[in-house]
Amino acid sequence: MESIRPPDAQQIPRFAGIRTFMRMKHTRDLADVDFVVAGVPSDLGSTGRVGQRYAPESIRSYSSYLRPYSMYHKIDVFEHVRGADYGDLDILPGYLIETYRAIESSLLPIVQAGVIPILLGGDHSVTLPELRAVARRHGPLSLIQFDSHSDAWDEYWGQKYTSGTLARRAVEENIVDPYHSVQIGLRGTLYSAKDVTLSQDLGYRVFAADEIRSIGIPKMTDQVRATVGGRPTFLSFDIDFVDAVHAPATVMPEFDGFTSGESFQMLRGLVGVNFVAFDVVEVIPAYDPTGITAWLAANIAYEFICHVALAKKRERMGK
Amino acid sequence: MESIRPPDAQQIPRFAGIRTFMRMKHTRDLADVDFVVAGVPSDLGSTGRVGQRYAPESIRSYSSYLRPYSMYHKIDVFEHVRGADYGDLDILPGYLIETYRAIESSLLPIVQAGVIPILLGGDHSVTLPELRAVARRHGPLSLIQFDSHSDAWDEYWGQKYTSGTLARRAVEENIVDPYHSVQIGLRGTLYSAKDVTLSQDLGYRVFAADEIRSIGIPKMTDQVRATVGGRPTFLSFDIDFVDAVHAPATVMPEFDGFTSGESFQMLRGLVGVNFVAFDVVEVIPAYDPTGITAWLAANIAYEFICHVALAKKRERMGK
Amino acid sequence: MESIRPPDAQQIPRFAGIRTFMRMKHTRDLADVDFVVAGVPSDLGSTGRVGQRYAPESIRSYSSYLRPYSMYHKIDVFEHVRGADYGDLDILPGYLIETYRAIESSLLPIVQAGVIPILLGGDHSVTLPELRAVARRHGPLSLIQFDSHSDAWDEYWGQKYTSGTLARRAVEENIVDPYHSVQIGLRGTLYSAKDVTLSQDLGYRVFAADEIRSIGIPKMTDQVRATVGGRPTFLSFDIDFVDAVHAPATVMPEFDGFTSGESFQMLRGLVGVNFVAFDVVEVIPAYDPTGITAWLAANIAYEFICHVALAKKRERMGK
Amino acid sequence: MESIRPPDAQQIPRFAGIRTFMRMKHTRDLADVDFVVAGVPSDLGSTGRVGQRYAPESIRSYSSYLRPYSMYHKIDVFEHVRGADYGDLDILPGYLIETYRAIESSLLPIVQAGVIPILLGGDHSVTLPELRAVARRHGPLSLIQFDSHSDAWDEYWGQKYTSGTLARRAVEENIVDPYHSVQIGLRGTLYSAKDVTLSQDLGYRVFAADEIRSIGIPKMTDQVRATVGGRPTFLSFDIDFVDAVHAPATVMPEFDGFTSGESFQMLRGLVGVNFVAFDVVEVIPAYDPTGITAWLAANIAYEFICHVALAKKRERMGK
Amino acid sequence: MESIRPPDAQQIPRFAGIRTFMRMKHTRDLADVDFVVAGVPSDLGSTGRVGQRYAPESIRSYSSYLRPYSMYHKIDVFEHVRGADYGDLDILPGYLIETYRAIESSLLPIVQAGVIPILLGGDHSVTLPELRAVARRHGPLSLIQFDSHSDAWDEYWGQKYTSGTLARRAVEENIVDPYHSVQIGLRGTLYSAKDVTLSQDLGYRVFAADEIRSIGIPKMTDQVRATVGGRPTFLSFDIDFVDAVHAPATVMPEFDGFTSGESFQMLRGLVGVNFVAFDVVEVIPAYDPTGITAWLAANIAYEFICHVALAKKRERMGK
Amino acid sequence: MESIRPPDAQQIPRFAGIRTFMRMKHTRDLADVDFVVAGVPSDLGSTGRVGQRYAPESIRSYSSYLRPYSMYHKIDVFEHVRGADYGDLDILPGYLIETYRAIESSLLPIVQAGVIPILLGGDHSVTLPELRAVARRHGPLSLIQFDSHSDAWDEYWGQKYTSGTLARRAVEENIVDPYHSVQIGLRGTLYSAKDVTLSQDLGYRVFAADEIRSIGIPKMTDQVRATVGGRPTFLSFDIDFVDAVHAPATVMPEFDGFTSGESFQMLRGLVGVNFVAFDVVEVIPAYDPTGITAWLAANIAYEFICHVALAKKRERMGK
Repeated sequence: MESIRPPDAQQIPRFAGIRTFMRMKHTRDLADVDFVVAGVPSDLGSTGRVGQRYAPESIRSYSSYLRPYSMYHKIDVFEHVRGADYGDLDILPGYLIETYRAIESSLLPIVQAGVIPILLGGDHSVTLPELRAVARRHGPLSLIQFDSHSDAWDEYWGQKYTSGTLARRAVEENIVDPYHSVQIGLRGTLYSAKDVTLSQDLGYRVFAADEIRSIGIPKMTDQVRATVGGRPTFLSFDIDFVDAVHAPATVMPEFDGFTSGESFQMLRGLVGVNFVAFDVVEVIPAYDPTGITAWLAANIAYEFICHVALAKKRERMGK
Repeated sequence: MESIRPPDAQQIPRFAGIRTFMRMKHTRDLADVDFVVAGVPSDLGSTGRVGQRYAPESIRSYSSYLRPYSMYHKIDVFEHVRGADYGDLDILPGYLIETYRAIESSLLPIVQAGVIPILLGGDHSVTLPELRAVARRHGPLSLIQFDSHSDAWDEYWGQKYTSGTLARRAVEENIVDPYHSVQIGLRGTLYSAKDVTLSQDLGYRVFAADEIRSIGIPKMTDQVRATVGGRPTFLSFDIDFVDAVHAPATVMPEFDGFTSGESFQMLRGLVGVNFVAFDVVEVIPAYDPTGITAWLAANIAYEFICHVALAKKRERMGK
Repeated sequence: MESIRPPDAQQIPRFAGIRTFMRMKHTRDLADVDFVVAGVPSDLGSTGRVGQRYAPESIRSYSSYLRPYSMYHKIDVFEHVRGADYGDLDILPGYLIETYRAIESSLLPIVQAGVIPILLGGDHSVTLPELRAVARRHGPLSLIQFDSHSDAWDEYWGQKYTSGTLARRAVEENIVDPYHSVQIGLRGTLYSAKDVTLSQDLGYRVFAADEIRSIGIPKMTDQVRATVGGRPTFLSFDIDFVDAVHAPATVMPEFDGFTSGESFQMLRGLVGVNFVAFDVVEVIPAYDPTGITAWLAANIAYEFICHVALAKKRERMGK
Repeated sequence: MESIRPPDAQQIPRFAGIRTFMRMKHTRDLADVDFVVAGVPSDLGSTGRVGQRYAPESIRSYSSYLRPYSMYHKIDVFEHVRGADYGDLDILPGYLIETYRAIESSLLPIVQAGVIPILLGGDHSVTLPELRAVARRHGPLSLIQFDSHSDAWDEYWGQKYTSGTLARRAVEENIVDPYHSVQIGLRGTLYSAKDVTLSQDLGYRVFAADEIRSIGIPKMTDQVRATVGGRPTFLSFDIDFVDAVHAPATVMPEFDGFTSGESFQMLRGLVGVNFVAFDVVEVIPAYDPTGITAWLAANIAYEFICHVALAKKRERMGK
Repeated sequence: MESIRPPDAQQIPRFAGIRTFMRMKHTRDLADVDFVVAGVPSDLGSTGRVGQRYAPESIRSYSSYLRPYSMYHKIDVFEHVRGADYGDLDILPGYLIETYRAIESSLLPIVQAGVIPILLGGDHSVTLPELRAVARRHGPLSLIQFDSHSDAWDEYWGQKYTSGTLARRAVEENIVDPYHSVQIGLRGTLYSAKDVTLSQDLGYRVFAADEIRSIGIPKMTDQVRATVGGRPTFLSFDIDFVDAVHAPATVMPEFDGFTSGESFQMLRGLVGVNFVAFDVVEVIPAYDPTGITAWLAANIAYEFICHVALAKKRERMGK
Repeated sequence: MESIRPPDAQQIPRFAGIRTFMRMKHTRDLADVDFVVAGVPSDLGSTGRVGQRYAPESIRSYSSYLRPYSMYHKIDVFEHVRGADYGDLDILPGYLIETYRAIESSLLPIVQAGVIPILLGGDHSVTLPELRAVARRHGPLSLIQFDSHSDAWDEYWGQKYTSGTLARRAVEENIVDPYHSVQIGLRGTLYSAKDVTLSQDLGYRVFAADEIRSIGIPKMTDQVRATVGGRPTFLSFDIDFVDAVHAPATVMPEFDGFTSGESFQMLRGLVGVNFVAFDVVEVIPAYDPTGITAWLAANIAYEFICHVALAKKRERMGK
C-alpha cells in the first residue's frame, strides 16, 4: 500500500510535478483504492458569480501543500487508506438536465466499485446528480449539508433544477431521507419569512448559524450524529458556509459566519458517521486572488480523507 | 406600495439589469418614498489611499445580492417602506469647500421632503456637509460614529477641513450635540497621547475598542441608546471600524478590530433610536479585489433600511 | 431631442450617477428613440472561461468615459439620434434552449418598434436568438462577423447549440444569408484541416487574418460592403477578434491579431452598410484587471452608435 | 563624479535597498547635481480614476530595473551628469489652488539652483504650477506636450483649474508661448467639434495621432524641433499619450495610440532641444497590476536623463 | 533627539516622500541610534511560493501609515528611542550558504555597535545567519519563535540548510539555548507523527495553537517570560503564525490560527523580556493584493519598536 | 498512434481533466514517444522578480486551449508525432550548482532515449544544465537564443552561474559552438558600452532588435538558418524577447519589442533547422493576472511541437 503514497514535499518540492490532488496517482483503475478524488467542473446552476468549473484545478493545485498527518486525529491518512485522483466527471456546458445525467452516470462506476468519492464541485447544482448516483447503491441517504442557504426553494426563474432547489428535489426524489438529515449554517438576508422554515417543513433538522452559536459546536455535532445515526451519509460542504472573509471566492458569500477553525471543529466532531460520499462546492478561482478559498477547500477535502481513513482504521480494528 | 418592490432575484437573475441599490427604481421624485439611497462620490479629504469616488458604484453592484427579509428583525423591509435610488449628490473634484456646499445643497431637498437619506460615501469628509443639511431641518444632531479613528483633530496639513477633522468641526458649527453623541471603535496607533481624549474633551462619549470588549456589546449599545435618547440621530459608519481583514479596501484599515458579525450585532442593538440619516463611508473599490468590503457596506446599508422599516412599522402600530 | 442628451462629463463628473450606457436614460419606452443599448447577460455557451454575464455591467461602467463627438466621422452622435439604455434582455441560467427563447422574445419588441438594438453580450451563443428576432422583421440577414474563430462547427460536446455553432445554425435556419455574409479574422490553432473551409463551404466569404494583412484593410472593407450590398445587416463583434493583448478578458484570446486601431479602421470602413442590429460579445470582466477589454467594447459600441447616427443623418439629408 | 553613480545591479541586486529613483542618493543638497528626480504626489485634478499620488513611489520602485547605458544614444548617462532623488514636492490634499502654490514654491529652489527637474506626477494638473516655477527663471516657455487630450478647455465643472485646462491657463498666464509650443497625440472621442481646434486657436502647433501616422515620426520630430527652436523648453508627458494597452493604468486610456517603441522614437528625435524641465504624469498604480505603466514611465524618465546627459556632453564639447 | 523624529503625517501626507520604515532617516551611521530597521531580501529557502525579497519594500511602504503613539503601552516611541532605516543587508541570490555568510557579516556591525536590529525578511532561512551574528556578541540566545511550523526538521530535499531546518541548526551550532527558548503556534497538517515532538526533543518549550487556546494567552506569555528569564532574546515572527485569512501572502498560510488582535496581545505580553534582536519574515507581496499582510508586518515591527522604547524607558528610570 | 492523441475539446471541455500539457498522457515511459514536454521549476538564478517555479503549472493549464492543427504549417501535429507530459525535472531550491546537476541528470535519460525535450522553465539559469545534457549526446550545439538580453556577462554578484551568464559559460564549457549560434532580440538599457559586443566577442551572431527591424524578419531567419546549418540545435526562448506588453509576467520586461505575431513569424521561419531540444523560460505566473504570458508561452511550445512534427514528416517522406 505504501506504493501509492504520494510524493513527500521534503523529497520533491511541492511546486513540482503534475497537479493531481495531493499529487496522488491519476488513474481510473478502481481496483485497489479506498477513495478517489474527482472534479465536477460544472457551474450551470450558479445564481450569481460563475466560474466554479475551474475549482477542481485550483483545489488540486493548493492540495500540494497538504501533508499526510493530522495532529487532531493523530493519524497519517496514507497509512490507512489508498487513494487516487480519478480526474473529472462528465459534464455538458449549457445543458443542466443533460449535465445531471452525465454526472450521475460517470459517478456510478465509482460508487458501484465500493470506492468512496470525494468530489470537488462545481456549483451546488452538482450535488443532486451525485446524490442520485450514491443513492442507487445505498438507498435514501442521510444528508449533512453545510451551507449558509437552505437550497430548498421549489423554483428559481421558473425552473425546478438549479443550485437553489437541490435540498427539496432530493427529498421529492426519495434519494435523501430528510428526517435523518441536517442543514447547518443558515444565515444572511432571505427572500421572505417562509425561507426560515423551508427546510424544516420538508423534514430536515436545521441548525441556523445563531442556534449553533447559542448551543455550541460540540452539542451541535452530537445532535447531528444522533440524527443521522448509522445511516449511509453524504456530506455536502458549500464553501459559503464559512464566513465571507474566510472564503470570499464564492457566489454568495455571507458575513457573520464561521471561521475556518470552527468549520474544522465541526467536521472533526462528526467522527463515527457512516460517510459514503463527500463534496465541497461553490469555489470560484477567478474571485480568489490570494487563493485562500481554494486552499481552504483543499483542507476540507483533507478532513474528508481523514474520515475515510478513520473509518478504515476502525474497520480494521474490528469495530 | 408593492409596485415599488424591486425585482426578485428568483424571478430576474441578480446579475441582470441596471445597477441601482438593490435594483430599486432610480428616480428623483421624492413624493412617495420613505427613504432614498444616494451616492456621495467625493474623495477629496482622503489622507492616504484614494478612490472612494467609485464606492457608490461598487456598493450598488453588490447590493443586488441582498434579499428583502431579515431573519434577525423578522421583517421584509419592503412591506413597510418605499425606497428609491436617488443617484448621486453633487460634488466638485479638487475643491473641498465647494464640494461641501454642493453636497449640502443637493442633499437638502431630500431632507426637507421628510425622506430619510441613506448615503454611500465617499471619504469621511463628506459627512460634515451631510450633517449640515440634516441639521438645517432637525437642529443639532446626535451623532453615532462607528470609526477606528476619532476624526476630531483641529487641523490636518494646516487645514481645517479634511476627513480627519469632522467630529470637531461639527461641534464647533453646532450641528452635532456632542453630549448626546458617541464615537465607537477607537484603536490603532495614534499621533500622540492627546489623541486619546481628543473627542472626550469635546463632549463625546467615546467607546474605545478595548472598552467595548471589556463591557460587551449589549451593554455598549444600551449606553449608546441612553446617550442619544430620542433625539434626531445621524449614524455615520466608517468602514474602517471593521477589522482590517474584514474590510481591507479602505484608507486606513486597522487590525484588532471587530468582525462583520459583531458590527451587525451593534447596529441591530440600536433599534429604537430616532434615526434621521445614515452614511457608510471610506470604501475604495480599487483595493477590493474580492469585493468583500463593498459587499459588507451593502449589508450595512441594508441594516440602515431595516431601521427605517422598523421605525415605520412602530409608527404604524401607533407606537 | 436635446432633452435626451446624456450628462456631459464636463458638467457632472463621469464617475457620478447610475451606470447606464453613456449615462443615457434608462427606459423601456421605445416611442421616441432611434436605438437602444441592451445587455444580454448569458454565458451558457462558453467553451472555456466564463462570466460574460457581468459584461453588460462592466461595459456600461466604462462607457461613462465616452464623449459624444467622433473626430473621424466628424459627428456628434446625439445631434442625430436619440438613444436609451433598455436594461437587459431576459435569460435563463442553466438552460440554453430556454435562454434562446427568452432572448428572442424579449428582443422582438425592440426590433418590431423599428428601433436599432445595440446588444452587449454575453457569450457568442446569444447571437443566434438575436438573429432570429431580427430576421423575423427583416428576413434572412447579412451577417458581418468579426471573430478569430468561425463558430461554424456542427456540434460541440454532441450538442447543436453552443457558442461554437451559431454561424452554421443561422444558415440552416435561414435567418442568415451566407452568400451575402462575411467572417473576418480567422486565426489561431484549429481542430483540424477542415476548420479552414468550414464557413466557406456554408457560403460565407471568409477573411482570415493573414488575408487581411495581405490585401490591406481598405480593400477588405470594400469587399465586405460589396458582399452585403444594401441588405439588412447584423454586425456581430466577438471581442476575441482583437489581439489577445488588446482584449485579454475573453474565453479564447488569440495572439497575432489586430490592434484596437486596426479594428476601429475596419468598423469605420463599413459606412454605408444597412445595419439593423449590432452586438459585441465575449467580454469577461473577472479576467479584466485593467478594464481595457470592457473599455474597448464600450468604444466598439460607440462606433456602432456612429453608424446609426450616420445613417440617420444620410436619411435626413435625403439620401 | 563617479562617487554619485548609483549602485550597479550586478553588484547589489536590484531588489535590494531603499527605493529612490534608480537608487540614486536621496538628498536635498543641490550643490553638486545637474538634475534631480522629484515626485509630485497630487491627484486633485483627476477627472476620473484617481490615485496618481502613489505614482512616484511606483515609478521609483521600477526604476531600479534601469541600467545606465543607452544603446541608442551610445551614452552612459552617469558619465556625463550627476543626479539625485530629491524626494517629493509639497502638496495639499483637498485644495487644488493651495497645492498649486505648494508645488510652485517647493520646485522653485531647484529651478533657481540651475538644476534640471525631472518630475514624477501626479495627475496632469500639477504641470501648471511646475510651469509657473520654471517660467520664473526662464520666462515664457516652449511646451512640448505628449497627450491624447488637449487639456485646453476653459472650464471643467465650472472651475478654471483642473487637469483639463492647463494648456489654456498656461497661455493666459504667459508662462507658455503657444506659438513655439506643440501638442502631440490628440485622439479618442471628443466633447464636441470645437475640441479639435481648441489648442490651435490658442496658438499651439497640434499633431493629432492621425497626422503623425500620416507624416511619419521623423518628420514630426523635425517640425517639433523647428517650432521650439532654441527656446527653454518644458517637456510634459501624459502617459495616456501611449496606447491604452501599453499604459493601461491611467485616468483616461485611449485606444489606437502609439506603442512604447514609437514613443521612445519620438523622445529620441528631440535631441538638441533646450530642455529645462520634464514631467511624466497620470500613472495610477492601483490600476497597474502588471506594473507595465509605471515601468514605462520609469523608462520615459530615463530618456529625459539621456537628454540632460547629452546636453551636458554637448556643452562640455564646446557646443 | 527630537531631530530624528520622522515626519508627521498631519504635516506631510503619508503618501509623500521616500519609503524608508516609518519615513525614518536612511543612514548607515550607527553612532546615535538605539535601533535600526533593515531588510533581508532573500527568499532562497522558500519551500513553496516565493518573492519574499520584495517584503522589505512593501513593509516599508505600508509603515508610513503607522503613528508614533501606542494606546496600549501609553508611549510615544520616538520620545524614548532614536531609530533609522539602515537599508538592506547583503544577500547573494542563488547561493544559500554564501547568503548566510553575507547576512551574518553585514549584520555584525549593527550588533557590535550595540544597536538593536529589527529585521524585515526574507523567508525564514534568513533567521539562522541573523542568530549567528547576534550570538557572536551575546552568546547562546533565547529564541522566541512565533510560527505555525516547527522549522526543526533535519533535512529538506537532502539539504541541511533551508527555511525548514533553522530551529535545529541553531541548537546544533550552540547559538540558541533551546531550554530557555520557545516555539509558539504549531498547527496545520504535518509530515508525520514525529513532527509533533520534533522541537520538544531538541529542548524547546512548544506551545501548539490548541494549547494556547486551552490555557489562554496571558498564561502563555507568563510562561514564555519565565522560560527566557533575563537572557538575551531573539524574537522571530513568521507571519504564517497568524491565521491564513489575516496574513494570506505567505508561503504556507495555515487556517485555524490567531487573529491580528491575538497576535498583538501576545507580543504585548512579553514586556520585560531582554530583547536583543527581532525579525518578521515570510511576507510575499506578490500574493498580497489588499496589502494586509505587509501592513500587519509593519504593525508587528512597530510592536518591536515599542519593546525597544519600553526597555530604554525602564533603563532611564533606573530599572 | 491515434491512441495517444490527447482529448478533443469538442468532446471533453477544455476545462475538464488533469492539467498536463495539452492534456497529453502523463508518463515517464519513453518507449513510444517522439517528444516530451517537461517542466523545470527552478528560479534560483533570477536577478529580479521571482516565481518562475510556477510557470510549468500555469503553461500546462493554458495549453488546454491549444488545438492540434496549424493553419500556417498545414499540419495536425498529432498525425505526425507522439508526445507525452513527462512531469518535471529535478531541482533543488536554494542551491544553484546542485540544481544544475539535478537538471542535467534528470534530463539525460530523455535525451539518451532519442526523445526531443520541450522544456518549460524556470528562469533562464536552467538552460545551461539543459545544454550540458543535450550536448552529452549531440556534442557542441548550435544555440538559437531569443532574448532581449545577452546573458553573456562573466559574473553577477561575483558569481559565475546565474541567469545572466549562461551564454558565456556555455561557450567556455564547449557545449555551445558560438560561431554557429545566434542571439536574437537585444534591446533595452544596458550596463555599459561593452554589453553591446559582449556576445559578438564570444563568437555569436547577434541580431539586435533594431537590426531585425532594419533587415526584416525573413532575411533574419534566412541568416539564422544559414548560421546554424544542419547542426544539432537548441532553441531557447526567453519570454522577455517579446514586448513588455505582450509578455508582462517576467523578470525584466523590455519595451519596444516584438509582438506575438512577429515572434511566431520568426519561429515559423526556422523550418528546416535540425532542432534537438527547446525551452521557453522566464514566465512568472504571480505577475500574470490576465494569463497572457503563460498562454503565449503555451503557444510558443506548440510552435516547437510543430517543428518536431514537421521534421518527422520530412523524415518519413524520405527527406
